[in-house]
Amino acid sequence: MKKYIIILIVAIISVIGGTAYAVLTESNEQQTIKDQYSDIAAKIIAGSLQDSNAYNRLSIMCDTYGPRLSGSQNLEKAIDWIVATMKKDGFDTVYTEPVKVPHWVRGNESLTLNAPYSKQISVLGLGGTIATPANGVTGEVIVVRSFDDLASKSKQANGKIVVFNVPFTKYSETVRYRVNGASEAAKHGAIASLVRSIGPASLNTPHTGGMRYADDVKKIPHAAISIEDAEMLDRQCALGLKPNVTLKLESKFLPDANSRNVIAEIRGSEKPEEIVVFGGHIDSWDVGQGAMDDGGGCIAAWEALRVIKKLGLRPKRTLRVCFWTNEENGLMGGKTYAKLHAKEIPNHVLAVESDAGTFKPKGFDFGGSAKGMELAKEICSLLGMIDASACEEGGGGADIGPIMELGVPGMGLLVDDSKYFNYHHTNADMMDKLNPREVALCTASMAVLTYVVADMPKKIQRK
Amino acid sequence: MKKYIIILIVAIISVIGGTAYAVLTESNEQQTIKDQYSDIAAKIIAGSLQDSNAYNRLSIMCDTYGPRLSGSQNLEKAIDWIVATMKKDGFDTVYTEPVKVPHWVRGNESLTLNAPYSKQISVLGLGGTIATPANGVTGEVIVVRSFDDLASKSKQANGKIVVFNVPFTKYSETVRYRVNGASEAAKHGAIASLVRSIGPASLNTPHTGGMRYADDVKKIPHAAISIEDAEMLDRQCALGLKPNVTLKLESKFLPDANSRNVIAEIRGSEKPEEIVVFGGHIDSWDVGQGAMDDGGGCIAAWEALRVIKKLGLRPKRTLRVCFWTNEENGLMGGKTYAKLHAKEIPNHVLAVESDAGTFKPKGFDFGGSAKGMELAKEICSLLGMIDASACEEGGGGADIGPIMELGVPGMGLLVDDSKYFNYHHTNADMMDKLNPREVALCTASMAVLTYVVADMPKKIQRK
Repeated sequence: MKKYIIILIVAIISVIGGTAYAVLTESNEQQTIKDQYSDIAAKIIAGSLQDSNAYNRLSIMCDTYGPRLSGSQNLEKAIDWIVATMKKDGFDTVYTEPVKVPHWVRGNESLTLNAPYSKQISVLGLGGTIATPANGVTGEVIVVRSFDDLASKSKQANGKIVVFNVPFTKYSETVRYRVNGASEAAKHGAIASLVRSIGPASLNTPHTGGMRYADDVKKIPHAAISIEDAEMLDRQCALGLKPNVTLKLESKFLPDANSRNVIAEIRGSEKPEEIVVFGGHIDSWDVGQGAMDDGGGCIAAWEALRVIKKLGLRPKRTLRVCFWTNEENGLMGGKTYAKLHAKEIPNHVLAVESDAGTFKPKGFDFGGSAKGMELAKEICSLLGMIDASACEEGGGGADIGPIMELGVPGMGLLVDDSKYFNYHHTNADMMDKLNPREVALCTASMAVLTYVVADMPKKIQRK
Repeated sequence: MKKYIIILIVAIISVIGGTAYAVLTESNEQQTIKDQYSDIAAKIIAGSLQDSNAYNRLSIMCDTYGPRLSGSQNLEKAIDWIVATMKKDGFDTVYTEPVKVPHWVRGNESLTLNAPYSKQISVLGLGGTIATPANGVTGEVIVVRSFDDLASKSKQANGKIVVFNVPFTKYSETVRYRVNGASEAAKHGAIASLVRSIGPASLNTPHTGGMRYADDVKKIPHAAISIEDAEMLDRQCALGLKPNVTLKLESKFLPDANSRNVIAEIRGSEKPEEIVVFGGHIDSWDVGQGAMDDGGGCIAAWEALRVIKKLGLRPKRTLRVCFWTNEENGLMGGKTYAKLHAKEIPNHVLAVESDAGTFKPKGFDFGGSAKGMELAKEICSLLGMIDASACEEGGGGADIGPIMELGVPGMGLLVDDSKYFNYHHTNADMMDKLNPREVALCTASMAVLTYVVADMPKKIQRK
């Protein structure tokens, strides 16, 4: 009985409050984003957190189809499942658009320490590396700590296998040894190159990732080894033990393959031609499950759209989820999107990407005009109740890069990134590293941001 | 000039202090361990911490010879180097004693996920497992969470590959799935068994280790997978995806091999027949470098002896460092020691083992009489200045187990074990996980404890 009285009182207060709010709203055309969207943000957040649907769908995708390298059947099967499931969700629009993608395959690979003792070393060829001859490349190892160090040891590098043993600082800093290491080593006559994996911690965990060959430099095989083994080879050289290894890689490029970007929309009620596009990349490397890179980013965006629909919300502008394909080794999804949607680009109000893992969200970063940044901050403040209201300068992401270059403001989901680079591009990028609550918080963040931007009176001002 | 005055003052104070101490010492026969050994403990600690010799020697051993599985050339080469180097150190006695050891070799191995998608899964056969047929064992997976769970799913386990997905609690608790899993699974008709690696954390890191077959139960192949993959197979089963794998193991037993325990001594000045034996096991698994399991334990003991010698100290009893061989898959070093030294056992005053990693030491545990425990506590208190004065009940270790059974009191070095089981029996048990200061602190702890026990008037009372 007591319970019913409490419910009645709450209901009365709500009605009074609601009326007061409505009066206030009508009496004040200049209300802030916060005034206008606090309640709806709370509703969206509650809707996002009420179950583990995002995590469960991510698990279904990852556990059924596995990692999703461009050109693989895994990727296309996962896309088929996504499209079918999105259609069941009943969005206004669900379709794919064709994207030609590079088709690199790893094949068998091995790295053998021949001296000072014999042992198999964990190795991952880097995406795009050439193969070795069938009997491998065998040579003495020289270890360098930087490109400058390599240059200073140019003579010793000639005819050897260069190991870049560069401790992780920031990804954007250290990754150049992975991306450019082969050609830099080849310039000094190296016969192959190995890079210490780009990450802060390791339990014998090599990290794959993209690499590039410079024009006019001989292509040599390029692979990643664990922190442990890079340090070991370094110590062995220092001890004068002349470590010697055999690298075997069977990797190759097949003809470009057909893949797809996936698009799902809630069409805008008043300005359907104006678009807020958001999502992540659906491809991954061929290791682990691509659970956080970037399955989680995709599923959080998808779930954001589903929660908005489930709550019966329809913003004035169109909400468009896009899963770009081939971010990892070509960016053809993002580039093709920019081409196929060229006419719509002026009507892209905002592009939002999640590709830093679906850990506890902190907020977003923003790349655009100073005025746009002010508005972005106001919108992000709506995420204060889940401690995700940060709004930092910078912003965007690889997939939305091509349309940001055309003037579209861009934002990227910021998360607790303390562990991301432990798992990034490794066989440890698996479902067990994520948790349902954090994925749901990412969903909530994406949903609130994109709904408000799609619905608010103002538009984020372009540069 | 000022410097020399300070040195002079310090010297005068030292002489006065030393004289005062000597007077006090002579005037008090009933002085405590603390009174008697505080200064000498400080000297030993300072001597242990003054350079990185222990770490550097460990690096030379690990980086030159690699992991040291019983029966391997690596192990015997490492022993040769140890003996030669110990002889250069000029100890009173350096010798080896012959030990017959099992000779299990891993061979090539692989685990392939065939369904729901195709992928190579990291695997480590468990020490002692039988091989699979050349084309492997292929079967559907069933995941269980305990032996009880297995029993309740007995019918489903028949003809399948059983995965024990049991989260790590304590090593002593969870390890039984590794040790006994194969026979338990075979009792229910399983065709192979896989165990979630025995450790708290993973970056796609399988852990090897010992296993046993029960008598009268069919032997089936038994291997370890990472936490990530055990969880994945569990989720796949829950999703009804019927995961199917092929396990290939080429492991085999060769005829028993010749190995050696290594012994080095400082002979006692008054009671050389009374012995304090201390050390670790010199063999390791065939993964990583056996840097912490148990290269570090051996080298810390060796270095303790070297520091004591370097300081010109000679205790009343004999200090004997022993590196037992074949702890990991046979314990033949410890067992053989007990046999070969049977006559000396009554004169073994104490046995000390370090086999929990050479991280920051906390103290020791003690296994023996209640009176012995009191004395052990008093001795451990000398390690207060390096925060290593804990003295806990329990005590001992695998290698000293056989002589503890004969009545010898045993102690084990306790260290910060927060990370040990991340690395234990994996390819991440490498030099980079240790640091020189912590290894030196382990040296200091071993040196102070063993010197004092070898020199003090009283003996630790046996049970």
